[in-house]
Amino acid sequence: MTHLLLAAAALALLPAAQPPAAQPAPSPGQIVDAAKADEWIAIAPSDLLVMDLAPDTAGGERRVVIQLMPAPFSRGWIGNIRKLAAAHWWDGTSVYRVQDNYVAQWGDADGEDPAKAKPLPVGLATVPESDYERPLDDELRGALRDKMKAEEDALLAAFRQPADVRAEAVRRAIPRDPYSDETIAYHGWPIAVNRETQSVWPVHCYAMVGVARDLSPNTGTGSELYTVIGHAPRHLDRNIALVGRVIAGIEHLSSLPRGPAPLGVYEDPARRVPIASVRLASDLPEAERPRFEYLSTESASFARYAEARQNRRDPFFIHPAGGADICNIAVPVREITP
Amino acid sequence: MTHLLLAAAALALLPAAQPPAAQPAPSPGQIVDAAKADEWIAIAPSDLLVMDLAPDTAGGERRVVIQLMPAPFSRGWIGNIRKLAAAHWWDGTSVYRVQDNYVAQWGDADGEDPAKAKPLPVGLATVPESDYERPLDDELRGALRDKMKAEEDALLAAFRQPADVRAEAVRRAIPRDPYSDETIAYHGWPIAVNRETQSVWPVHCYAMVGVARDLSPNTGTGSELYTVIGHAPRHLDRNIALVGRVIAGIEHLSSLPRGPAPLGVYEDPARRVPIASVRLASDLPEAERPRFEYLSTESASFARYAEARQNRRDPFFIHPAGGADICNIAVPVREITP
Repeated sequence: MTHLLLAAAALALLPAAQPPAAQPAPSPGQIVDAAKADEWIAIAPSDLLVMDLAPDTAGGERRVVIQLMPAPFSRGWIGNIRKLAAAHWWDGTSVYRVQDNYVAQWGDADGEDPAKAKPLPVGLATVPESDYERPLDDELRGALRDKMKAEEDALLAAFRQPADVRAEAVRRAIPRDPYSDETIAYHGWPIAVNRETQSVWPVHCYAMVGVARDLSPNTGTGSELYTVIGHAPRHLDRNIALVGRVIAGIEHLSSLPRGPAPLGVYEDPARRVPIASVRLASDLPEAERPRFEYLSTESASFARYAEARQNRRDPFFIHPAGGADICNIAVPVREITP
Repeated sequence: MTHLLLAAAALALLPAAQPPAAQPAPSPGQIVDAAKADEWIAIAPSDLLVMDLAPDTAGGERRVVIQLMPAPFSRGWIGNIRKLAAAHWWDGTSVYRVQDNYVAQWGDADGEDPAKAKPLPVGLATVPESDYERPLDDELRGALRDKMKAEEDALLAAFRQPADVRAEAVRRAIPRDPYSDETIAYHGWPIAVNRETQSVWPVHCYAMVGVARDLSPNTGTGSELYTVIGHAPRHLDRNIALVGRVIAGIEHLSSLPRGPAPLGVYEDPARRVPIASVRLASDLPEAERPRFEYLSTESASFARYAEARQNRRDPFFIHPAGGADICNIAVPVREITP
């Protein structure tokens, strides 16, 4: 009698104890593990934000590493975040909100109270709402050209089908993101496209980091940040700035006790999780810098990985899905160990 | 200087301290709160599975309530779960696996070891894989008719557009689920449709509960269960049985410490979370039964709620998304308080 559990789903990740009768299809993880060294791109230390929370009750270290998003997808907020880190502004602030299936949020828990708010460094930029999106410019259009051309061709071919099968053929030929016309992993980030407005924007997947804000036209400074700890809240796309993603230590945020409903705010200061320090990795002594790399989203291995995420054929699966949403094709990131 | 945080997003849920200048659009939560009493459907006590974990370190109660899925979407496994609960089989077992952005899983942590596995009750059914799906029969086709007809009409109208705008019109007219041809909330549950095979199945959204299993053709008995605690792993649809969803206390599972990667299994028995008891609510003394109701997915208020989830117009939002995936339109469930 065996109850092999869901664990079987990832057995293929482990070295097989006995050789299987036939070679099973590789899992997405195996494809990533087999990627060539030159398909991985090192992340610059100046793009890594290292947040150390106070140790847990057993004295365990709680380090969260955030990869900052490069321009042009995230703009003025990133400069503000660099200034806040340089000023050690987050040191002594806290994680003060954890809402189940939504976000964990940190910064100044007293920020809403003018009498108690921690003063911000001078010189932070006020970023306009228009920077939530950017134009689909020539560079990105070039990157998207092959994908969009293939889809266009498939759609035109579908139109030419006989009437009785045309609707079905067209259905199969259309990109199926509920929130945009097109999604793509581009230079390491999940991006959505609107063909009509010719604009693009990064999207709210699990572990993405955004800038909490007051009501419009406030866009937030970057001092109050959150990360997604549940199902992708894509309705926030274009409504709030994304600045990066947690690439290590998300469990120190996602497994925190949830605050009281509806917003998960820890009103009781004793429940807040103190932040010991937040630094750019480039401001840490070289020996202490964490080092990470991501699988180039423009690489052949990433294309194979994305295809395998859409059509799981590794031994656990019996029905490949035939598709996947962009947030289920997370960009592989790994620590570089010396 | 204010840092109003993401909290502003839900201010509309709270009674306004001062009347706003103009009436803002209602949030999805406000629409649900305004639903009529007769739009709510009480869940039968025999469809509620009540799992009490051992108290937390502070002595706090940890109760998880699961709504079992009715036939025909989940079949033989539900009968097995009723037998397991009646036999008190889960009492003394544990939550033994918590994998970040994936699942929390419980049952017999030693189930894979024949020498240590806890014997199962006699008479459990072996359910075939074909029961992961069911035919799109007349009843469901009737329920879907209006939705599918409207989409069919929109698609045909799009085909008749001039050539230069036809592709765009068609794109807008197609349902956009990456994993199926159609999704719908039906009799309280998220369902996907394949038009070609004329089959339907329930889908893996946050908090849905499924039956862990060994490799195919094993379909699991129902003794080892998991719940989704991250982004919807829709690739598991039709590959594993869904039997219900957590409707209260998910935080007692989603906020548990993650086990070691890659599978999150607590190999160390001391880390496992003991299960004190699992009972159907109908087997509890009447005074101790939790009572819940869900908003009918066939009600006018649900339709308004779903529309508002797809097009957020409440004050925090500046860009309504124009769509939402089925897992971002969670069926509202609430406790009935005496």
